[in-house]
This record gives sequence, structure tokens and C-alpha cells, in this order.
Amino acid sequence: MIIVMNSSATRQDIDNLESKLSSLGFKTHPIYGSVKTVIGAIGDKRLINTQTLLTMPGVEKIVPIMKPFKLVGRELKQIDTIVEVGDVKIGGDELVVMGGPCAVENRETFFEIASKVSEAGAKILRGGAYKPRTSPYSFQGLEEEGLKIMAEAREQTGLKIITEVIDTRDVELVSSYTDIIQIGARNMHNFRLLQESGQSGKPVFLKRGISATIEEWLMAAEYIMDAGNKNIILCERGIRTYETSTRNTLDISAIPVVKELSHLPIIVDPSHASGNWKYVSALSKGAIAAGADGLIIEVHTNPESAMSDGQQSLIPRNFSELINELKPVAGAVGRSI
Amino acid sequence: MIIVMNSSATRQDIDNLESKLSSLGFKTHPIYGSVKTVIGAIGDKRLINTQTLLTMPGVEKIVPIMKPFKLVGRELKQIDTIVEVGDVKIGGDELVVMGGPCAVENRETFFEIASKVSEAGAKILRGGAYKPRTSPYSFQGLEEEGLKIMAEAREQTGLKIITEVIDTRDVELVSSYTDIIQIGARNMHNFRLLQESGQSGKPVFLKRGISATIEEWLMAAEYIMDAGNKNIILCERGIRTYETSTRNTLDISAIPVVKELSHLPIIVDPSHASGNWKYVSALSKGAIAAGADGLIIEVHTNPESAMSDGQQSLIPRNFSELINELKPVAGAVGRSI
Amino acid sequence: MIIVMNSSATRQDIDNLESKLSSLGFKTHPIYGSVKTVIGAIGDKRLINTQTLLTMPGVEKIVPIMKPFKLVGRELKQIDTIVEVGDVKIGGDELVVMGGPCAVENRETFFEIASKVSEAGAKILRGGAYKPRTSPYSFQGLEEEGLKIMAEAREQTGLKIITEVIDTRDVELVSSYTDIIQIGARNMHNFRLLQESGQSGKPVFLKRGISATIEEWLMAAEYIMDAGNKNIILCERGIRTYETSTRNTLDISAIPVVKELSHLPIIVDPSHASGNWKYVSALSKGAIAAGADGLIIEVHTNPESAMSDGQQSLIPRNFSELINELKPVAGAVGRSI
Amino acid sequence: MIIVMNSSATRQDIDNLESKLSSLGFKTHPIYGSVKTVIGAIGDKRLINTQTLLTMPGVEKIVPIMKPFKLVGRELKQIDTIVEVGDVKIGGDELVVMGGPCAVENRETFFEIASKVSEAGAKILRGGAYKPRTSPYSFQGLEEEGLKIMAEAREQTGLKIITEVIDTRDVELVSSYTDIIQIGARNMHNFRLLQESGQSGKPVFLKRGISATIEEWLMAAEYIMDAGNKNIILCERGIRTYETSTRNTLDISAIPVVKELSHLPIIVDPSHASGNWKYVSALSKGAIAAGADGLIIEVHTNPESAMSDGQQSLIPRNFSELINELKPVAGAVGRSI
Repeated sequence: MIIVMNSSATRQDIDNLESKLSSLGFKTHPIYGSVKTVIGAIGDKRLINTQTLLTMPGVEKIVPIMKPFKLVGRELKQIDTIVEVGDVKIGGDELVVMGGPCAVENRETFFEIASKVSEAGAKILRGGAYKPRTSPYSFQGLEEEGLKIMAEAREQTGLKIITEVIDTRDVELVSSYTDIIQIGARNMHNFRLLQESGQSGKPVFLKRGISATIEEWLMAAEYIMDAGNKNIILCERGIRTYETSTRNTLDISAIPVVKELSHLPIIVDPSHASGNWKYVSALSKGAIAAGADGLIIEVHTNPESAMSDGQQSLIPRNFSELINELKPVAGAVGRSI
Repeated sequence: MIIVMNSSATRQDIDNLESKLSSLGFKTHPIYGSVKTVIGAIGDKRLINTQTLLTMPGVEKIVPIMKPFKLVGRELKQIDTIVEVGDVKIGGDELVVMGGPCAVENRETFFEIASKVSEAGAKILRGGAYKPRTSPYSFQGLEEEGLKIMAEAREQTGLKIITEVIDTRDVELVSSYTDIIQIGARNMHNFRLLQESGQSGKPVFLKRGISATIEEWLMAAEYIMDAGNKNIILCERGIRTYETSTRNTLDISAIPVVKELSHLPIIVDPSHASGNWKYVSALSKGAIAAGADGLIIEVHTNPESAMSDGQQSLIPRNFSELINELKPVAGAVGRSI
Repeated sequence: MIIVMNSSATRQDIDNLESKLSSLGFKTHPIYGSVKTVIGAIGDKRLINTQTLLTMPGVEKIVPIMKPFKLVGRELKQIDTIVEVGDVKIGGDELVVMGGPCAVENRETFFEIASKVSEAGAKILRGGAYKPRTSPYSFQGLEEEGLKIMAEAREQTGLKIITEVIDTRDVELVSSYTDIIQIGARNMHNFRLLQESGQSGKPVFLKRGISATIEEWLMAAEYIMDAGNKNIILCERGIRTYETSTRNTLDISAIPVVKELSHLPIIVDPSHASGNWKYVSALSKGAIAAGADGLIIEVHTNPESAMSDGQQSLIPRNFSELINELKPVAGAVGRSI
Repeated sequence: MIIVMNSSATRQDIDNLESKLSSLGFKTHPIYGSVKTVIGAIGDKRLINTQTLLTMPGVEKIVPIMKPFKLVGRELKQIDTIVEVGDVKIGGDELVVMGGPCAVENRETFFEIASKVSEAGAKILRGGAYKPRTSPYSFQGLEEEGLKIMAEAREQTGLKIITEVIDTRDVELVSSYTDIIQIGARNMHNFRLLQESGQSGKPVFLKRGISATIEEWLMAAEYIMDAGNKNIILCERGIRTYETSTRNTLDISAIPVVKELSHLPIIVDPSHASGNWKYVSALSKGAIAAGADGLIIEVHTNPESAMSDGQQSLIPRNFSELINELKPVAGAVGRSI
């Protein structure tokens, strides 16, 4: 790291800082400018809480040089990670589409959606059994009953299933049903849930937090990998900004940035990003062309009666049509669906 | 609620929507403008997922009229809530100052800080036993050992204690030690943790999420109150914006807005808001003058060696001086410290 | 518009508001809910400053029903506008690529870049003669000398040219040289400049302000069109958010949103959006697949010596390669380059 | 500055960069870490466009060490600037309150407001003659007629006057009437207007841009000072964030941050920051307690009929009451009103 001293730092301040750094095992390399001094410090930053050095007299700022993540970074592993969920591969040349309703509402509706999602060509079926809802008065999910319905739909359609877990106490149960565990945007900073999911043995689908930086998101993935789980799929789902014409702002730049920094696959969720089914097609095409490894899209047979997020759900016919339209886009960037 | 139809909505679209609303128990009142029709719908919006109406043909937008929160709102209870923690009252004329380190690091350091915090005139001692850290390689807290140290410090000083819980599985244990349970910013949307804390019987200190709207924050409080707990203290700790000269941006306007919308007390955390001890004094004074019911401030005897957040911690002498400087400010707005 | 009364509004408050609205020429339609009253008011909102009604007793909020823009909106003109710049059409099936350096630095460099941009297949040449720079100590542009160099490059290559104007006093001069006038992001709210440009007779390329909402951006276009100029090209160039891994956050959702609300063409600037040449390719492909009508890309033969924005400029070989890679993407969405 | 090389940078990359820096007049000091190399470069960064170095092979990022502003910074001038407007001093122990309507609407109304503002104890009268409005259909101001009315009100009341200029062509005219020239938030990045105002000889009141960083704001002040004008007053008026319960988010932390970085006085505008007269009192008190040098507050005798911003205007009685309530707050932080 680099420590920048302010312009009124004294020789004594610099000496004190160097002693401190030395006692922490760092080698120091001061550079004396005409106004300010900067000190290069070589050592293992993880051993200390470097920000506290800011409290020493004369210190203006600390500039980290190394990325804070290790296991999920390109520097340690340059080859792209391909997450295998049975015979479905996420992160390879073939793109993966996940579809399904926000919430599992009841057996009939879910089975109907599942069969439509399968027919349209998707490989993975989404559905929520535990719903994190802004209001305590909203539908909170069918819980284990929902998981059972999902498992049955898997039997009927051959689709893999993905569902969200929102409580450390449920990780074991959810893992026993699902193929992929989803960590939602609101729980990206629920570190205990990250650790439990990391120990579950199932691939983890990690949504970016509502206002998480890409670095914080990769650090959340680092928690999962540090817990022993290498099968992580990142999901960009829009970030919170001042713009209100969409529910969130899809950060499409996150695709090339993540590809540069990490070896993990990245999926885009155009439904939550826009909050409006009318924009899902444009965002899906944009995401694939920009290099995403797949999409997760909300599909409902009867959006106007959905118990959650109907306004951002495609009806099966539009979902099927979208997948057809995505094929040439995927082809144009050397991928297939 | 009000439903706005778009300019190309047909008579049939309007009739369909009215039928749908009627079947859901709403009375409808259409108003026909020269370009657009709007429909007033009177009924209990909580019974349905209104956003899904957006998928009906001709519907442009839904405008809610009632606030989504009930129990925490001023409309149901106009008198200010005063949360009593033993003989300490939060929300009354006397302001409450909470002080202490970010993390409980060891017995000696914590006891020393506790005695200084007490001498300075604070009433409540903060300290973290479970730390939500961005990096899995950072110090994660002493857990139950930390809780024991806090309880001992309470015995020695007479201060009440507040500490954070980050996992539903720990709520019972943490409740058995602490006087106030803290829900951190990263867990404001961890609804299960809100519910468990709501059932703990202990007052809950609810920090605003890093990018939560005031409405979402009050809805999180609604979860706690809906679980049976009326003793909730809100804490504004800065929100995420584009500005980087401070760690977060203290949303001081949240004080009068919360006071208008809710009967709950609101405390300000200038340490996390700014991330820089040099700005804590100005923000503390500003918060008190703007009507906050108290402050929570990080204090450490040796910030440069703190295991977490040293750069935003005051040393005891500065903390004590700040409390003295706050007294006339409190007096100027009809309060006392 | 809809006026929502608060829950403590009296009958008298409602009557007063209705009288006020009536005196302003509005017809009122009150709807009495169990807790709150809302009043529909039909009339021409443009005649009054509606927000001031918020100051009347009992008024809680005002909800506009009509979009504030007229001329640029789809409601008045449903057919897409195609802006013609000589034989180049912007907004039709054929996509338009604009390329060139941030600033015109000198004759040789600019001519060299221009010929490369032309060879690569771009139709429009960009270059800045007046540079709005954050620092007064940075290069501010060659001014009229730069305009002359651009005009010469047009003669040599047959490319159309686009350049920015930053002062009302320069609009006439700049118009006499350029084919398209650019209003930069920092001047989107410089209403006098919008009006002058609107009267120039030249097509106007209107960049979205750094933190402008889509509605504000369309209102800025409304200023230009209200001044008599129908040839407006919108440019999404990234918005300011908390994320720092890119210079701005490309709001790709703006493409379908603008296409829904307005008949004007929309171009994407991946260079300013990302601030990093490495991400330009991914964002360009994403933008085209999402429905943009073209791209404006910074190109420089020697980025490391550029006087402005070199880090986000492509070298000609990469620019040419990108255009080739964009062809199948355009084809996949029914367009051509 | 510090240049950080990426982990795959070669010896050759480092040598090339050092040669380049050397040719630009920098002395280089490489520090070789185990994974990455960083190069300290000492010299005058203003002479080159350092960001372009990012395009050289192996370069990961550039970290500036010196602040980009000089004249407005504390490093060059440690003593607080006090701007004198006749006998009114801005930046000293006595706080300054500016009051008046958003727009000058007509002679009678303005004179009435002016006399009330004067009676309440304010020293400076605000009023807009040229209004930057989001909509071309809104009232745009009385222009020179408005300036004349303001000048007459100055004669009658003895108040100093402040008004906004929005076009370089009007700077001379506006300067001939006003005591202080205001640059509005939307024009903070209108560099030509900054330069013209800088040459006007009148003190300049510089509002922070809607989403400007503090550094960009100080750079805008640097433009004015570089043009020869030392009398600059900064105005924090709220920044754009995702929160919608207030019009903007007052960045109260900007007060201590500006006081640390610059010697210029800082005024707070609680009216535009909140967009709601009900919050003006709380924010005004907060701002004064946090160290602001004064306030600019919208006042109107008949807010419900105001042609602009009535909803955020105080009526004279509330304005007068607020000033009385501010006196003890000012006293509590060692200031007076």
C-alpha cells in the first residue's frame, strides 16, 4: 500500500509511521516530493487494519495497491470457471437461460409455468419459496411446501431448479431440495448466510447487493469461496440510482468489469433490473451482446394475478419469442443458446 | 390508490380494469380527462399485489395514496414513543449519547474505554461482539466472549449496553446479555432477523440500510413492531451516494422527515456517516440542532491500533469535550444532555 | 393532475382547494376515501405552477398525470424521427457510427485520425474545438482554429462533422462550420444554449446530463424543439452513480425507455460512459443489441499522448475491428451498419 | 503522483513508462512489491494529461497525490477568506442570512417581501430575474425589469442584493445591478460563465452542482479565482441521491469537508435542499450548528401563488421566527446572527 502524508506532516510524523509499519512487518520506501511525502509499504495488508493508520499524525490517506479479493480474482486463477449443475454448464460457450415466477404460489400454476419454461428452451427453473418482501403484510412464500412443488416440477420437466434462501437456519433444508442456492440482493451482505451457503455443497447464485460496488460483490463471493465452495455464479440485477423510470439501473458495464477482475460466470436479471416486462427484451439482448453468460427472467402465465412482481414477468409466449430472438444475438458474439 | 391509464387505453381496457378492481373488493371512481383517464380505487391495498395491475392493457402507472406502514406511522399514533431502557429514556427531552468502540477487542481495552465513556457523561455503551466485515479475512468479533466482557463492563460502570446481532441463530443468546439489540445497516433488509429481534423482548436499534429509502426503513421497523415489539429506535448512519470525501453521506433531512412520518425516536451515527473522526464533532452538533434524539459515537483509547474503524473513532478526551460542546446546542433547541 | 389531501385535512381545506383550482380553470373531481381525500383536477397544468398548491392547508402531494413534454413525446408524434445530415440518416434501419478524438489537437493528428475513422466505415467525425474541462489548467481547445481543421478534414474524407458548443456567443460561429452541434452533458441544463442551438438550423446532438433523469433530458430536448428545431439526436453517455469501477454507469435501460416515450433517435457513447477503452467493445455491442440507433466512439492514433481522454480512446485498428464485430450484432436485431 | 503497474507488467513496460515520465520532466521512484510495482513520479502534473498514461502497457491505475485545486485550497492560504459586500461580511463570526423569493414576480410583491425580509433581520435579499426552468413552458423571469425592481428594493431597504446569471451575454448587465452574482447549480459546470463572472468584479456565490463532488465544486471555484476574483462564496444546496422524500439530499458533511480543504466561506440553502418549507427550520439549525457561515432561504408572502418554488418558501412570520430560533444555536457554536 501507499501512505500519503499531508503537507504539514513533520519529519517526526514520518519516522513514527515508518516505525509503526516496521513493527507490523512492512518494509517502507519513502518518496519525498516537494510538498508531500508518500511512503510505499510492502507486506501483508490483511494482517492489519490499515485504515486505522489514518489516525496517526500527518497521515492524509491510504491507497491500497492489491485487490482485496484473492480466490475469486483473475490474478490467482486465469481460466474461466464453468459451474456444472448436472449436465448444465454455466460459463461456457453455451448461454444459460433461467426462467420462472417470482414466487411459487401453488402447484397448478407452478407446474404450468414450468412446462412452458421448459418448452421455450430454458434449462433452469426459478421460483421463490421464501420471499424477502419489503412489507410484512405481503405474501412471504410457501416455504418447505414451495420447495416440494419445485422438486416435483424438476421431476416432471427435467429442468434444474434454483431458489432463494434468506435465513441461515434454512440453508440445510433448502440445499436438500434445490440444485442452486440463490442469495438475493438484500442478503449479499449477510455474511453468515454467505458462509452457510458456502458450506452447503451446492452451487451458489450470488446477486449483487442493491447498492453494492463490484468490489464488495466480489468480496461477498470471496466469503463463499473461503468457506470451501468454488461453484459461484454472479448475478447483476440492477443497482439503485436516482433514475426512477426503471425499478433499478442495469449496470451493464459490470459484465466486462467482472470478466476482467474475476474468473466467475456472470448472469443478468433484466426483470428485477427494469421492473417492467416491456424492457426485458431489450435488456436481455444487450446483456448477451455485452458478454453475459446467461439470463434469469421472470415468467408467469397470468402476471396480472401474480402474488409478487407480476409487472416485470413475461408471459410464456413472449418468453419463448425472446429466446428465439436471442439466438442470433448470441451467435453474433460467438456464443449459442 | 389511483390508477392512471395511458392515452391509448380503450373503453374496454377501462371496463376490464374496473371489473378486476371490483372483484378484489375495491370501489372505483373514474375521472375522464381530455387525454387520459384515471381511476380512483378505494379499498384495502394490502390484500392484493397492486403492482401486478400494471400488466393489464392500458394501465400506465399505479399511485399509492396511503403510506405502506401502519404501526410505526404518525397516523395511528401521534404521540412520540419514548423507549425506556431501565432508567434511560430515549426520545424525550433529554438526549442520549451512546459511545464505545466498533469492536470489543479484549477485556482491558474495553473496560478502559467503558470507564472513559461513562466519565464523559454517556448513558449507553456500544461494542461489537459479532462484526459484519466486508472481507472474510478481517477480524470477525469475539462472539459470546465479547458479550460477557460487555456485561461485565455494565456491572462496573452502570452503563446500559448495546450490541449488534447478525444471525437469527444468535438472537436469543445476544438478548440474554444486552440491553438493546442493534440491527446493522447491512441487515436492515434481513427480514427474518427483524422478526426474531421483534420477538426478543429487548428494545431494537434499527440502522438505516446503506441505500434504503426512508419508507423502506420504516417498513423494516414495521416488521419488528408487527412481531410484537414497540420499543424501536431508528438510527440514521449515512447513505451511499456518489460523493467520496466522506464514507457515506449523512442524510440530515431524515431527521425532520422521520419526525413527521413516525412516532419513533431517531439517533444519528456521525462516525459511520463520515468515516472520519475529524468530522464527527460538526455532524454531531448539526444532528442535535436538527432535532435528533441522540447520538451513537465510536470511541477508542488507541484508534491507531483498533481492530476495526479506528479512523472514525474519537479518543476519550475528544469525546468528553464534544459532549460538553453539545450541551449548549441541545439547550438552544430546548433539549438537554 | 391528482391532489392527495393528508389524513387531517378538513372539509374547509378541501373546499378551499377546490375554489382555488376552479379559479385557475380546472374542473375538480373529489374522491373520498376512508382516511384520505384525493381530488382529480382536469385542465392545463402548464398555466400554473402546481407545486405551489403544496403550501395550501391539508395538501399532502401532487401527482402529475400528463408527461411534462409535448413536442418530443410519442403521444403527439408516433412515427420515429429520422434526422438527415446530408445523405446520412440517423434513426433508420442503418446504424450510424461517429468516431474521432476528444479534442482537435493539431492538423496532422486530426487528419490522420479522420482518414482512419473514414476507412473503418464511420460516417461522422467527432472532435472538440471548445473543451469544457474540470480544471482551468487543462487544455481548453483550439477554438475557431479547431473548427477550421475539422472543416478541412470533412473536405478530405467526405465525413460529416460534429463538434461541441459551450457558450451562447459561439453558436453562430460553430454552426457555420459544423454539420451537427453537440450539447455536452455539463450543458444539458444550460437552457439559453439549448435555445440558441434550437435556432441555429443545424441538427442538435443532446447529451444526457451527468445526473439528469430521462424526463429532464427529454425536457431539455423540448427546449430545443420549442425553439423551432426538430432535428434532435439524443445521446446516452452514462450517469453518475456510487460505482467507481467505471467513470460513469451506462444506463442501457434508457434506450428502451426513450424509445417508448419519444420519437427521437438515441445514440450511445460507450467511451465517456466507461472511461476505459477496454470496456468500449462490450458496451458498444450491448447498446446496439438493446436498440440504440448508433454509437459515438473516441478514437485516437496515439492515446498515450492525447491531450484529453486518451484512456478511453480506441486506436484505429481496434475501432475498425469493433465495427466489423458490430455488423453481425446489428444484423441480429434487424439493423445494418 | 503514483502509477500502479498491474501484476503482469513486464520489466520493459516499467522501463518504457519511466522513459516517458522522464521525458515529461518527472523524476521516478519505483518500488518493487512481490506482485506489483508502483512508481512514484515527482513533477508538475498540471503540465500533462496524466490519465492518458493509463493507455501504456502494464499500467493499472494512476493515483494523484496533490489536490487539483491550488488558489482555493487551504494549502496556499490558511486564513479564512471573509467576503465583504459593502458592510456585510461573509465568513466571519457573524452569520449572514439571505432571504427572498425564488423569482422576482412584480414590483408590489417583491417590495413587500423585501421589507419583511429586512424586518426579520436578514442582510441580503435574494430574487431571480433570469430563471433556469426545467420546462420551456414555465415562467422564465422578468430579466432586466426584474433587476431594476431588485435595485429599487435595495434602495428602499438597505439590503444588499443577490441574483443569478445564466448566460455569458448577461454577466455585464447583471453585474451593473447586483451586489453578488449567483451561479446556480445547473451552471456550476458552465466554465465560460464561471470565467465571465470571475472577471465581473462582483463577489460570486457559487452553488454546488446537482451531482458535483466537493472536489469538482472547488475546481469550479478555482476557475473563478483563476480569472482574478477572490471573493467567492460557496453554497451547499443538496445533492441528487436515490432518496425521494426530499427534493435533494442536503450534504451537511460538505460543511466540515469544505472548511478543511478550502479557505472560502460556505452558505447552506435549506430551501432547495429539501424542497419543502416544513423541513427548512430543522435543516437551518443543523447547518448553523455544523459550522455553516450563513443561510439562503426562500421567503414569499403568498407561497401558494408563487410563480416558482412556493412549496419550499417560508412565509415572513415563519422566517422571522426561524431567525430568532437560530440565535441561540449560533451562540452555542460561538457565532452570532
